[in-house]
Amino acid sequence: MTDVVTFEKLPSEMLLAGKGFRLKDSDPDATPGFPGGKSDGEALLAHLDGRLTTLQETLFAESRFGGTKRILLILQAMDTAGKGGIVNHVMGTMNPQGVQLKSFKSPTPEEKSYDFLWRIEKAVPAAGMVGVFDRSHYEDVLIHRVHRWASPEELERRYAAINEFEARQTGAGTKIVKVMLNISRDEQKERLLARLDDPTKLWKYSSNDVKERAFWDDYMDAYQKAIEKTHTDAAPWHVVPANKKWYARIAVQQLLLDALEGLHLKWPVPELDVALERDLVERS
Amino acid sequence: MTDVVTFEKLPSEMLLAGKGFRLKDSDPDATPGFPGGKSDGEALLAHLDGRLTTLQETLFAESRFGGTKRILLILQAMDTAGKGGIVNHVMGTMNPQGVQLKSFKSPTPEEKSYDFLWRIEKAVPAAGMVGVFDRSHYEDVLIHRVHRWASPEELERRYAAINEFEARQTGAGTKIVKVMLNISRDEQKERLLARLDDPTKLWKYSSNDVKERAFWDDYMDAYQKAIEKTHTDAAPWHVVPANKKWYARIAVQQLLLDALEGLHLKWPVPELDVALERDLVERS
Repeated sequence: MTDVVTFEKLPSEMLLAGKGFRLKDSDPDATPGFPGGKSDGEALLAHLDGRLTTLQETLFAESRFGGTKRILLILQAMDTAGKGGIVNHVMGTMNPQGVQLKSFKSPTPEEKSYDFLWRIEKAVPAAGMVGVFDRSHYEDVLIHRVHRWASPEELERRYAAINEFEARQTGAGTKIVKVMLNISRDEQKERLLARLDDPTKLWKYSSNDVKERAFWDDYMDAYQKAIEKTHTDAAPWHVVPANKKWYARIAVQQLLLDALEGLHLKWPVPELDVALERDLVERS
Repeated sequence: MTDVVTFEKLPSEMLLAGKGFRLKDSDPDATPGFPGGKSDGEALLAHLDGRLTTLQETLFAESRFGGTKRILLILQAMDTAGKGGIVNHVMGTMNPQGVQLKSFKSPTPEEKSYDFLWRIEKAVPAAGMVGVFDRSHYEDVLIHRVHRWASPEELERRYAAINEFEARQTGAGTKIVKVMLNISRDEQKERLLARLDDPTKLWKYSSNDVKERAFWDDYMDAYQKAIEKTHTDAAPWHVVPANKKWYARIAVQQLLLDALEGLHLKWPVPELDVALERDLVERS
């Protein structure tokens, strides 16, 4: 156990999209802070599973005694970047009782008839939960910017609305972790071709994915802008290199671990006389 | 892999609460159909994980192309019987995207103001999902019968309503798997004492659990009656011996596997020209 390769520098620092951040400078092939290779990464993922599960259960337990803390992991990425894999391999090992996953698709006509945050508000995690947004309100400043479905003024309104919304969640006890999984254009091509070649993956392929590839640079611009406008102390962005799936998974796992550790969780101690209760159980 | 111990007779047959079923004859310590011990059971659970995950993903994929099939696992049991462990160890390995878990607590005042199936209807699994009810509408014919919160006539109405409700779900594409986890009174005592002795489990302990132990026999009568009244071809009951947690887990895993196999799932084949799409991706 002790010879597992761990991060030398934490993703929460290494991958933070701080002041002056430029998406262009982030290398999708890199493995920042981690000195090992694929098998080391897989070993680390398995090794830290237990810790993640224990922290999650403590978070859940606290909420049963009035705790209001919770986590919200927001995952954004280009298609095929591996959001599903993160959900499956990182969140998949947690207790399903404590995970609240919401995948946001194209809005329904009803959802469209409201402000863009209406459907988001309804999906925020309950106290004690690790919530995950697979896509999110950021679609409203990403694809909407790329295809000019929103005017520049409306986009500005949305950035501000997002910051207010996220600050409010933070104020109510939510630790927000925002992640952009960063793959390269070439890597996406390989993954789309792989879907076409595999009968168990073909169902995930959409002709629309190819069409959107023509807008790649516009998407990168939109991400750059969104990160600039909505990277706040309350809800910072992390850009995770994602060409290597194993790296993206341990990086997000580590971000979650850090977020949970930062909550200083403790097992709740119910107000009861343990000796008396033991006696009652024995006699029952 | 080939030397994993498997079921000699399937839980879907062995544990079926068929005609003339008597709960009193079901031994909570038994391990019907399984010739191995604890370590064999744990090995089998891990061994069949992959199969379960693949079937679940196929179910999910089908729903993306119009499929309406889905699973609903209903878990009922006395406190400490291990519902949470089943959710964690059996469902916990599935892809969270395809699992829809609903834990039913005491109804809220709003829920109480409606018919007992109102809140249940809202929680039925979406197409392609493996839904799990941790407790369910059966509470309304179990604890309500034990404490006489419902009259005999009202209970009869509810049994009938449940059968109609479940038949309707089945008609809409839902495969229902109903499981009662069967622990003994003595085993529950041991587990309650264990909660009192472990600071990481103490938060799960409730003084109320001891009080309910006084009604143990009434609960068993209520289960017997509920199973008699609601064991149908569309939604049969299985009584799973649960004093050995490892056995309960492999039994429920096997019930889920059988249910999924019975759906004859296939990877969807999208209507697209793969060669053309490959060419478009290559050029993109």
